[in-house]
Order: sequence, then C-alpha cells, then structure tokens
Amino acid sequence: MQLLKDRILKDGVVKPGNVLKVDSFLNHQMDIAFINELGKEFKARFASQPITKILTIEASGIGIACIAAQYFHVPVVFAKKAQSINLDGEMYTSKIESFTHKKVYDVIISKKFLTPEDHVLIIDDFLANGCALIGLIDIVNKSGAVLEGAGIVIEKGFQSGGQRIRDMGVHLESLAIIDHMTDSEVCFR
Amino acid sequence: MQLLKDRILKDGVVKPGNVLKVDSFLNHQMDIAFINELGKEFKARFASQPITKILTIEASGIGIACIAAQYFHVPVVFAKKAQSINLDGEMYTSKIESFTHKKVYDVIISKKFLTPEDHVLIIDDFLANGCALIGLIDIVNKSGAVLEGAGIVIEKGFQSGGQRIRDMGVHLESLAIIDHMTDSEVCFR
Repeated sequence: MQLLKDRILKDGVVKPGNVLKVDSFLNHQMDIAFINELGKEFKARFASQPITKILTIEASGIGIACIAAQYFHVPVVFAKKAQSINLDGEMYTSKIESFTHKKVYDVIISKKFLTPEDHVLIIDDFLANGCALIGLIDIVNKSGAVLEGAGIVIEKGFQSGGQRIRDMGVHLESLAIIDHMTDSEVCFR
Repeated sequence: MQLLKDRILKDGVVKPGNVLKVDSFLNHQMDIAFINELGKEFKARFASQPITKILTIEASGIGIACIAAQYFHVPVVFAKKAQSINLDGEMYTSKIESFTHKKVYDVIISKKFLTPEDHVLIIDDFLANGCALIGLIDIVNKSGAVLEGAGIVIEKGFQSGGQRIRDMGVHLESLAIIDHMTDSEVCFR
C-alpha cells in the first residue's frame, strides 16, 4: 500500500535491534484519518470473505482493529495479555512470547465472544516472528470459529513470522512488507 | 446518556467486589456502532473546546478514544503502562495504582506527543477511584498542555474518583454515573 510505505519512509525511525518506530502515527500517537485509509484497504483485501468478527490483541492492535471494523460492520474482540479480576468464566488461552517486551505471557479471550458460528479476521499492527499471531490463530482454532485471514499493517519480511503463517495456509495480507532495513534505509518487498 | 444506561441495564453484569462487567460491548468485545454513538456524545459535550489531541491509556481506552477522535478530527495518544524497548527518548511518567489489577505501575508518554500547544481531552472507559485519570492529568500538567476536560464512559459514583477530579476543577463528563449497584440492580444518578 503506497500511502503506508510513503508514511513509513517519511515518519518511521529505525533503531538498533531491528526496531522500526512508527510511534508518531501508528502505535503511540495515532493518526486516525490515516488509519481509516488502512481500514479501507483491509476491507478491500478481504471483501469476499464473510467476516463476522475482528480479533486483535492489546494494546496497539486495538485502535487499528476498531477503525477497520467500521468498514466490515462487525464487532471487535481484543485478546488480553494477563489474567484480570474482570475476566472470569470460561476462557481460551494461549502462551505467546513478545519480541518487544522479551517475555512470555498468556493471551486470553472469553469463550463467549468466539464461537463456531464466527468467521474471524485477525488484525494487528506488526508481524515479526509471528508468535502473537500464532497465539491468536491457536485460540481461533480452539473456538471452532473459521479463520478467514489475518491483516497486518507492517510485516518485517526479514523475520520468520510471515513465512510461518503463510506455510500454515492462512490468508495473510500485510499492507507493507519490509525486506531489510538499516539506519538510513527501509527497503520494501 | 440514555442509550448507554439502557445497554448497561441490558448487558452489564454485576460481580462481587463492585465489579461491573461490560465486556460484551465495551472493553473485551466492542460494539463499534454503539461506541460511535458514545463518540458523538463526547463531541457534543466538548463541542466548544478547542481540542487538538485525545489522550487515553492502554488498553481498554484505546478503541473508544480512536472512534471518538473521528468526531474531533484530532490524533489519539495512548499512554503506555510499562517501559518497552520501543519507547525511548524523553518521556513523561506518572505512577498509578490499578483498581482492576491491584498493582502499581508507571504510565508513560513520549514528550514528543504532548506539547504546550496542545489542548487535551482525556477519554477512558471507567472512572472509579480516579488513580488512572489523575496520573494522566499529572502528565498533561507536566507537558504544559492545556487540559480541556475528561470524558468517561462509566463513572462509579460510589467511589471517590469523580469527586476528586471535579474538586480539581476539571471539566469531567461521564456518560453514565452509577450511584450504587447490587447483584440484581444498577442505579444511575
């Protein structure tokens, strides 16, 4: 998606450790008009799928998922990363490892909100090693819902997640795929 | 706001410990069309303020803030709850205590995204003892930005937060205020 690539080139900042900071428009400060354009693009790429629910994971996926959901006219469910006293009853859980935070945590979704009748589109901001996405896919599979696909804003194509997800047969759409990056350059696939 | 009160009465569930679960429409599964109505109501209540930025805190405030921001045509900034390797540079921090998670944590915002030129509306899903909101207000004050007000979806009027915030002179708008609740009843102010 050219608008996204242009914005990454303009406002993205590469940091040591293969970190791409897009916190001025995507995941700390959020440019809502721009994110609406991402939402429209996700709708265009999954227009023929009978999506009933958008699934994401806290925290930085939530805003993107909510804006995108307006084009699908479906609810959002966001997976939580830690047990809370507000989450009781039956829950689906999966363990995932965070690249950003360098720790393992449980990802949790109430069973009430994913059923075998659901057709699920997963949306998230980044795909790197794929652990978060694989955890969400695991939960969708446990619920009996149909996984219609996954929409990612930025895929780090030089990490293994995208290949792993595609090898699973998942319909994966990444709006920008970065093949490699240096301090001075971001190269897209 | 009658639409919200009706929805709480229909789908809210009271749990022991003064917990009101609204996770079927507000903060786990999110009814985006409904949340758009909340966004319009926030715009109506702060129509005369020159808002330049909406501030919220991860995780459950983010979606509501993003939907509401569409009616204000301004960016959202969400405060983060833990130090991450993606958050470097100069940051504003404030310590807050979570009623839900029963722990103390740092709330962090990059200094780049709050400046003395900003006129800030804080948006969050719940106001109970007010600690999260007071932490955000503390950060707005540190930044030199103008605090134009705070918009809350559900205020627990039987806890002290609302009174503390109003006593600080903050323009606080809660779309529903619960005066008391029992297992069988939710009473609004």
